[in-house]
Amino acid sequence: MELKNAHACFGGAQRYYEHFSSEIGLAMKFSVYLPPKAVAGEKVPALLYLAGLTCTEETFMIKAGAQRLAAELGIALICPDTSPRGAGLAGEADAWDFGVGAGFYLDATAKPWALHWRMESYILNDLLQLIGAKLPVDLQRLGIFGHSMGGHGALTLALRHPGKFKSVSAFAPIANPVNCPWGQKAFAGYMGDDRSTWAAHDASELMAAQKQAPYPAGILIDQGLADKFLIEKQLLPEAFEAACAKVGQPLSLRRHAGYDHGYYFIQSFIDDHLRHHAQQLRD
Amino acid sequence: MELKNAHACFGGAQRYYEHFSSEIGLAMKFSVYLPPKAVAGEKVPALLYLAGLTCTEETFMIKAGAQRLAAELGIALICPDTSPRGAGLAGEADAWDFGVGAGFYLDATAKPWALHWRMESYILNDLLQLIGAKLPVDLQRLGIFGHSMGGHGALTLALRHPGKFKSVSAFAPIANPVNCPWGQKAFAGYMGDDRSTWAAHDASELMAAQKQAPYPAGILIDQGLADKFLIEKQLLPEAFEAACAKVGQPLSLRRHAGYDHGYYFIQSFIDDHLRHHAQQLRD
Repeated sequence: MELKNAHACFGGAQRYYEHFSSEIGLAMKFSVYLPPKAVAGEKVPALLYLAGLTCTEETFMIKAGAQRLAAELGIALICPDTSPRGAGLAGEADAWDFGVGAGFYLDATAKPWALHWRMESYILNDLLQLIGAKLPVDLQRLGIFGHSMGGHGALTLALRHPGKFKSVSAFAPIANPVNCPWGQKAFAGYMGDDRSTWAAHDASELMAAQKQAPYPAGILIDQGLADKFLIEKQLLPEAFEAACAKVGQPLSLRRHAGYDHGYYFIQSFIDDHLRHHAQQLRD
Repeated sequence: MELKNAHACFGGAQRYYEHFSSEIGLAMKFSVYLPPKAVAGEKVPALLYLAGLTCTEETFMIKAGAQRLAAELGIALICPDTSPRGAGLAGEADAWDFGVGAGFYLDATAKPWALHWRMESYILNDLLQLIGAKLPVDLQRLGIFGHSMGGHGALTLALRHPGKFKSVSAFAPIANPVNCPWGQKAFAGYMGDDRSTWAAHDASELMAAQKQAPYPAGILIDQGLADKFLIEKQLLPEAFEAACAKVGQPLSLRRHAGYDHGYYFIQSFIDDHLRHHAQQLRD
């Protein structure tokens, strides 16, 4: 992997990397924040953050204000890009909610996307393997969180890969994509029209199918009530809430009056998410 | 003034405004962060932040991570744009260090810039007047700070307008523009080749000409030592340091190994700046 940029930040290091992903078949970018402890060589716990539609590996690191407390808590932050770039597929960048910048953290099965759009395998196989091998990060103490499309990614990857992640949280996740316009468009495009294949990538469906609470220490979700995508029924946190209730999964779904969908909302509650993960990653 | 955008943030309000400036003769944009106290109607102290080359009224509010502590301390943050936009002067956007995005917080006297490029009068007359009249901000408790070109702006406006600002600080300011390439290009363009007019807009020259310390409670400057513009001698903090020493102005000039010129540096030390101002704005 190639270090593209590095910046001192709160006594730690903000880095931007590029590497060739064999799962994707293209170069991919990601960002890492290493707290002072890790820069000094100690292996630290890490959080994988998955960003939303139109974002890149840079968005969270610039806008969320997470590094201050991550430095203090001694947690690394890792953020992949939101899709393959440069595949050159016809129409790949025509829409902001499908294709480039909109990988939905799953492996596409429909043509032409199946060749490169393999974000789930990319993250689980390529990215985490690389980070575990090359950076002072302890993947036995790994949490996952994300925002919007990345909240969907965090919840679904946490449910699809038991044991991989020790803690989970989300900001305004797309919590029931099979029942919202964003999800239906993306899932039909990436997986085809056979809806029976979609449930395996829907956080609410996955949770409802659990035999017991997969994260007994609790899942944290923050949701703004002035979020226009909540109002337009793209997010549907109530579906995930019902699924958690059904299987006895402890969930703290906090609804915040006045907050919208953006990073001013995220930065307002980022510290609570870092502390949520830090507590569950302690050992 | 027209409210263009508003976002809940740390219990307060992040707002973006546009208004017509009679000093500039064009519409101007600015951003305001109001802490929870101010949203509740209480008049609060405020900090005017001046951004650097190529930035807008949005940069600081997105990247500096200042709102968290500003909310806690009960301080409003105000950030103007870095130049007029839309004047339509020939070549106004050809360079990143002159013209659009590079107003240098002074009133141009040379043609064709003199008509619109009046950032000093804009800030002192139009912007502060508007904010004092329309927002729950106490201009008797006003501090000023900034970054790079905006650090130059903060230091020079604080020295040119005694009594207007109660506290001053800067991140990596252009501290002696008459002796660096950025400053020489901008001052020649905006004020013409007669260098005798330049000293009145140079922080180090202004400080050296003081009869006594203008800010006896102290000025705070943070400077990264891996800042390529420091290395290229665009910033020259040592000139300002010498001028402060000459007149007995207390200065805390902190040099930080490893830090560069960007907002990862700024966010690492923003809390110290907010606390520096909060202490001096207390009464």
